[in-house]
Amino acid sequence: MTVPLPSWRPGVIRDALVDFVDAVTTPDTPTFVPERERIAVFDNDGTLWCEQPVQVQVAFSQARLKQMARTNPAMADKQPYKAFLEHDLPTIHALGKKGVFEVAFAVHAGMTVDAFMQSAGAWLADARHPRFGRRYVDLVYQPQLELMSYLRANGFQTWIVSGGGADFIRQFAEKTYGVPPSQVIGSTVRTQVQDVNGRLDLFKLAQLDTFDDREVKVESIGLHIGRRPIFAFGNSDGDLSMMRYTLSGPGRRLALLLHHDDAEREVAYDRDFRLSPLVEALDHADAYGLRCVSMARDWATVFPPEQETGGKGAEARNGARRAA
Amino acid sequence: MTVPLPSWRPGVIRDALVDFVDAVTTPDTPTFVPERERIAVFDNDGTLWCEQPVQVQVAFSQARLKQMARTNPAMADKQPYKAFLEHDLPTIHALGKKGVFEVAFAVHAGMTVDAFMQSAGAWLADARHPRFGRRYVDLVYQPQLELMSYLRANGFQTWIVSGGGADFIRQFAEKTYGVPPSQVIGSTVRTQVQDVNGRLDLFKLAQLDTFDDREVKVESIGLHIGRRPIFAFGNSDGDLSMMRYTLSGPGRRLALLLHHDDAEREVAYDRDFRLSPLVEALDHADAYGLRCVSMARDWATVFPPEQETGGKGAEARNGARRAA
Repeated sequence: MTVPLPSWRPGVIRDALVDFVDAVTTPDTPTFVPERERIAVFDNDGTLWCEQPVQVQVAFSQARLKQMARTNPAMADKQPYKAFLEHDLPTIHALGKKGVFEVAFAVHAGMTVDAFMQSAGAWLADARHPRFGRRYVDLVYQPQLELMSYLRANGFQTWIVSGGGADFIRQFAEKTYGVPPSQVIGSTVRTQVQDVNGRLDLFKLAQLDTFDDREVKVESIGLHIGRRPIFAFGNSDGDLSMMRYTLSGPGRRLALLLHHDDAEREVAYDRDFRLSPLVEALDHADAYGLRCVSMARDWATVFPPEQETGGKGAEARNGARRAA
Repeated sequence: MTVPLPSWRPGVIRDALVDFVDAVTTPDTPTFVPERERIAVFDNDGTLWCEQPVQVQVAFSQARLKQMARTNPAMADKQPYKAFLEHDLPTIHALGKKGVFEVAFAVHAGMTVDAFMQSAGAWLADARHPRFGRRYVDLVYQPQLELMSYLRANGFQTWIVSGGGADFIRQFAEKTYGVPPSQVIGSTVRTQVQDVNGRLDLFKLAQLDTFDDREVKVESIGLHIGRRPIFAFGNSDGDLSMMRYTLSGPGRRLALLLHHDDAEREVAYDRDFRLSPLVEALDHADAYGLRCVSMARDWATVFPPEQETGGKGAEARNGARRAA
């Protein structure tokens, strides 16, 4: 028998994953679930990729703000832009998660959705993590890539339900995670269709439409999926409603909570992370029926192996290491 | 060679459909489109099923209102409920499409989404069309069922983008059209997650969230699909933005407009239908690049063949015919 999840260490969590998938996919058993109802939802920041020391979308909006400040230098003295431009993390985090994302989204107002996607794609192709020196899209969690593939191979749909911007995540989710744009749910700004020389395009406005966090994640699941998931994976109190909603339906269900307890290979944080704290879900995991995943204990590897291809990529990487 | 669309009469429209599908699916040609980008969007009311003489969701809300008026008789004298209860179509249509749907949605406020789905399912299982005497779910257009199957067999995703209520359509779309709940976009009310004895459920509120008509259909496509469709099918000015947005992208695209010109087999209507008029799209079809489908000319059959199985179903049907 081949092991389906090589980057997951043997133990209660890997057993729980395999047992769950076996239970819902074995025909003619009371726990069987038809394929169309095999819905799995994953948070993104901190669940599928590294969100420390800075949310990737914040870094993206910092880059955009720098560009804007060149043509409008007065921005550099105005809060909250000043904090973003100066990478003043305490001030940024003091805005709260919603406030941070509102700034991050507002800086792309006036662009078409297509132009935004191109801009995000160009930035993601090069931008690197300040500590690890690798591209953000390469700092996804290898065990989660394997888990999503394993679920899909067993007839599941894998959805992302994130507080991050839906369009930003859609830019890389298909290539990186194998999740198509239509299965990415996230925070959104209002958009407006406009006729430009007889051609209709969709433009981003500055106004936040949905901030997809906490209870709103459940409402978004109702809006986009129209079915209660049977599997959920999160890492903060922002994911707790989604996990509890998943567990509140009939039949076999599984909800997992990733605990970042691995300072050596990634970062150790939970209740003190102001932007997205993990308190209630951690303290009441048993009462809510959540299974806690320890990054240190349960993951044999954290990030995918580095592709040392040399050439331009490796040079840029070394440059980033020197700069960090 | 087998004919893929037996209920479509040979002619320019059937040729245009087959040519389009061949063009986007033939590898190594300039018109080829990868499967993940083969997005087809269909309006529902009047495009996939019969919307005359009454929108099916209006009939459903009338049934619910009758139920409510039994416990609260004062409702029967209050507009707009009075008009709904008395099936006063001129007064109902005078509310406008949005106003009609607002009433239709509000009567289900306070229910869980799951309870709403059960209620809609029970109603749809029996409710019959006043003229044709068949169940509404059997008054879908046979040529469109064949077209959706044909598109899916060629790697397309078939989406519904409707002004009708998303949850209502989701109740029958998978079984009737082969479209899963997550590929049904429609008008929505706000929902709220609530903890009931430790179990999280999603409740419908009275407040309209999105009225998915005209320009909003394009914004909804951006929100839910995250890709510009390459194929669109509609039947009213409410679908015009969606059709023009579809045609505004690069490469081969096709947008079709169904013209209800068949009083004998269905209903003949266009610019005078107050609830959902067809004026601009009809008058400017050529300028916008839309292909007009004539129900009378292009469809060999309109509705699927009736299943005369006898028994309870046939009795109920005869009852409906007598009552009509």
